[in-house]
Amino acid sequence: MQVTEEVEKLLQLKAQIADDVQPHKFVLKCPKGTRDYNPQQMAIREGVFNTIIKCFKRHGAETIDTPVFELKETLTGKYGEDSKLIYDLKDQGGELLSLRYDLTVPFARYLAMNKIANIKRYHIAKVYRRDNPAMTKGRFREFYQCDFDIAGQYDSMIPDAECVKIVAEILTSLDLGEYKIKVNHRKLLDGMFAACGVPDDKFRTICSTVDKLDKTFWEDVRAEMVDEKGLNPEAADRIGHYVKFQGGMESVELLLKDETIQKQKSAVEGLEDLKLLLVYCELYGIADKVMFDLSLARGLDYYTGVIYEAVLQGYTNKPSAKEEESVSVGSVAGGGRYDGLVGMFDPRGKMVPCVGVSIGIERVFSILEQRVLASNAKIRTTETEVFVVSAQKNLLEERMKLCKELWDADIKTEQSYKRNPKPLDQFQYCENNGIPLAVIIGQSEIQEGVVKLRVVATRKECVVPRNTMVEEIKKELAQLSRDTTGINNPQTAGGKCC
Amino acid sequence: MQVTEEVEKLLQLKAQIADDVQPHKFVLKCPKGTRDYNPQQMAIREGVFNTIIKCFKRHGAETIDTPVFELKETLTGKYGEDSKLIYDLKDQGGELLSLRYDLTVPFARYLAMNKIANIKRYHIAKVYRRDNPAMTKGRFREFYQCDFDIAGQYDSMIPDAECVKIVAEILTSLDLGEYKIKVNHRKLLDGMFAACGVPDDKFRTICSTVDKLDKTFWEDVRAEMVDEKGLNPEAADRIGHYVKFQGGMESVELLLKDETIQKQKSAVEGLEDLKLLLVYCELYGIADKVMFDLSLARGLDYYTGVIYEAVLQGYTNKPSAKEEESVSVGSVAGGGRYDGLVGMFDPRGKMVPCVGVSIGIERVFSILEQRVLASNAKIRTTETEVFVVSAQKNLLEERMKLCKELWDADIKTEQSYKRNPKPLDQFQYCENNGIPLAVIIGQSEIQEGVVKLRVVATRKECVVPRNTMVEEIKKELAQLSRDTTGINNPQTAGGKCC
Repeated sequence: MQVTEEVEKLLQLKAQIADDVQPHKFVLKCPKGTRDYNPQQMAIREGVFNTIIKCFKRHGAETIDTPVFELKETLTGKYGEDSKLIYDLKDQGGELLSLRYDLTVPFARYLAMNKIANIKRYHIAKVYRRDNPAMTKGRFREFYQCDFDIAGQYDSMIPDAECVKIVAEILTSLDLGEYKIKVNHRKLLDGMFAACGVPDDKFRTICSTVDKLDKTFWEDVRAEMVDEKGLNPEAADRIGHYVKFQGGMESVELLLKDETIQKQKSAVEGLEDLKLLLVYCELYGIADKVMFDLSLARGLDYYTGVIYEAVLQGYTNKPSAKEEESVSVGSVAGGGRYDGLVGMFDPRGKMVPCVGVSIGIERVFSILEQRVLASNAKIRTTETEVFVVSAQKNLLEERMKLCKELWDADIKTEQSYKRNPKPLDQFQYCENNGIPLAVIIGQSEIQEGVVKLRVVATRKECVVPRNTMVEEIKKELAQLSRDTTGINNPQTAGGKCC
Repeated sequence: MQVTEEVEKLLQLKAQIADDVQPHKFVLKCPKGTRDYNPQQMAIREGVFNTIIKCFKRHGAETIDTPVFELKETLTGKYGEDSKLIYDLKDQGGELLSLRYDLTVPFARYLAMNKIANIKRYHIAKVYRRDNPAMTKGRFREFYQCDFDIAGQYDSMIPDAECVKIVAEILTSLDLGEYKIKVNHRKLLDGMFAACGVPDDKFRTICSTVDKLDKTFWEDVRAEMVDEKGLNPEAADRIGHYVKFQGGMESVELLLKDETIQKQKSAVEGLEDLKLLLVYCELYGIADKVMFDLSLARGLDYYTGVIYEAVLQGYTNKPSAKEEESVSVGSVAGGGRYDGLVGMFDPRGKMVPCVGVSIGIERVFSILEQRVLASNAKIRTTETEVFVVSAQKNLLEERMKLCKELWDADIKTEQSYKRNPKPLDQFQYCENNGIPLAVIIGQSEIQEGVVKLRVVATRKECVVPRNTMVEEIKKELAQLSRDTTGINNPQTAGGKCC
């Protein structure tokens, strides 16, 4: 990541220098807050996606896709203070469009449009936010979300607990170290705000401010409430008391006994839900990963019930002295219940209760990329099994016939795109790219109706008849695959014939 | 597709009716020219992508990704007359951005930015064109392109022929019926235009007009040349003579003997390239699929050498009486050589020769979707293997423990999200969703420390001890999978114990 940025800077400098001699000035870069993925990065990304998709499918999800942009009005009034971060398209005649800000609002629009009352679906796609990027921390303007949602009228906390279970399964599989899944409840927050004396019409904006507690300190949050949002200082201090509540079942029980909280029907409902959620998490074997935290607020307007957010331990959002040295990524997943969103789209206001979770993949990439860089591991970016080598000049047509035969037999095959490549260059290419097997032809092989097979790692060679070549190569590849995945010793790897 | 459109219309009508009673008026739809993919459509789409990716990997390609938008100036001057179809983002302060129009220009930008001189990569992603959509024909404003490109200084026609081979492999694997891959050459077109008396500065615009020959008749193309583009009628008629040339090697040879053409150096170079390409296609076993066609022009400005386009036989772009009945999709792949594009991005103008092909997947989807609809085939959209059924009330906690155990053993498992679901509803869910196995618990099973396994298709049941449940289920699933993929007779399918 830092390498990419450095390269980008150097290229820009170079472009500026070149302008002195070139007439046309242009900037060679990706748009601010976006990045390319090179083949190594794509290999890491695909590994992460496979882990996530495997988990979503393990829980019986199907998948859908929606357009990258929506009618502007589809997104209007769904994101509260974050709406200013929505990318709009230029008015070029016709509909007014915006890039999707998340996958949840398009999902709700999809449900309402198709009158779907029950679905369990995942959706992995890019979303767009005109936020302040911090690319080394994995904060981008274009980034992937991996969403899993359960829509339908079901019994309390059963789908909600499964979402938490899914986050735990994914973070465990990705092997990112210790993590915690913080849980809270919008009804509890609303009840707490009411108990603290926050006026009803300030609930959502105060909620947005509380949400900043994971990135900044209480003093700054309090100042924003009082100075910017006009909350009276006593109310702010009462909030300051409650947002310290965190822990397991005992914290929830403690709050249920709080006399001020008890008076708020909404707060008690939220706490009862949380109790049930914690019981289910215990049954799902993830109680040690889950933590109630009354300071968790989530910025988005549409949540109505349980909310959650997963944070990696050892990585933090808050500023620290060591910030430059560590990859600080903070939250890697979040979500919650949004029972009112689909109703906002339905012409008759028909509600479809939903709960879901979104995995924020860029932050995970940042960690895995740095890990690969640090380990100096070489990642294969192709799956080529065979390289067709010509030992002498003027054998292009023979190579082409061999390639055709191998491709048609579904063997992953490459050859040089030069008419007369040097043998050494061809073998070097195999070694550089981790291609396990070379098929070599020269004049003598052609005359004898054979080809030579070479195991690239050991340089062991054997000769096989041309008409059984495909069969022999398949055996050899199977053997090599057993050797490397089983004994994992490529130096002594030997196939059937080599 | 038509169903989706009908549903959309009805929903809009309903929304209008609802407006009489509801205060807020809004349109519930996808933006013009875009679509959602439901789970069935996604299953088809993933099948197509897998076929294509498998082919790209068989030819040794790695993959990259680029942002969905680029700096506006990155796209400027690359697409000729089509530039008017580019989606711009609204100027919200900062950089001016446009949605990518294809994957080729971002690829060239990527190569120049990272100083890459050699790469073979594929890229599958959505691109955006403000064109007139015709959704039943698979023409969208948001659509996927599946691109494969080879960049590097290589010998003539070797990478070019591999691109044609790849198109042939993919179209054959997708089983879309007969197809032809038309080939032509920009140098030949330019030489032909010169020979016909087209002024140099009109080459590109006349080329764009010739490109319309696959969608409209010669008379209209001629009229556009003469009336709109100011070409003299004699030149247009001479073009009309040459664009009829099509066929195999014999047509290329015939043109090489044409005295007017012979005088154009560029035309002769193009014809020599085409001869070589046809020889290589013969070696690759696809000569019968490839056809030289001098009327093939391709709209985009950046091509400099060989160009190609694949069309499905039996589907046409041209208007016909039967149009309403048939899915008319026309071209499903296209591409060519673009040796100058990377140089346009390099500050010093360093060239990287490239050739590539793009598979247009939406048109393929249209055909496959209609085929599935017509066959009444039921596509599974989930991979769930086991459904945990409770035989009586108040067993939610037991079900949750079973689910945990199965998920942790990587068995794809679902359960009802209701506290006390009816047994019949649970079995019905299994049948509706093709779930092969049910794990049933009731009070007696809990007391005896066992669970009941039921093969959903045959309703055969057996009892297994709770502590070997995972093992028994894995055996049963393996057996069922052998039965259905092998003998394919689910009615008599029986596992080890059932």
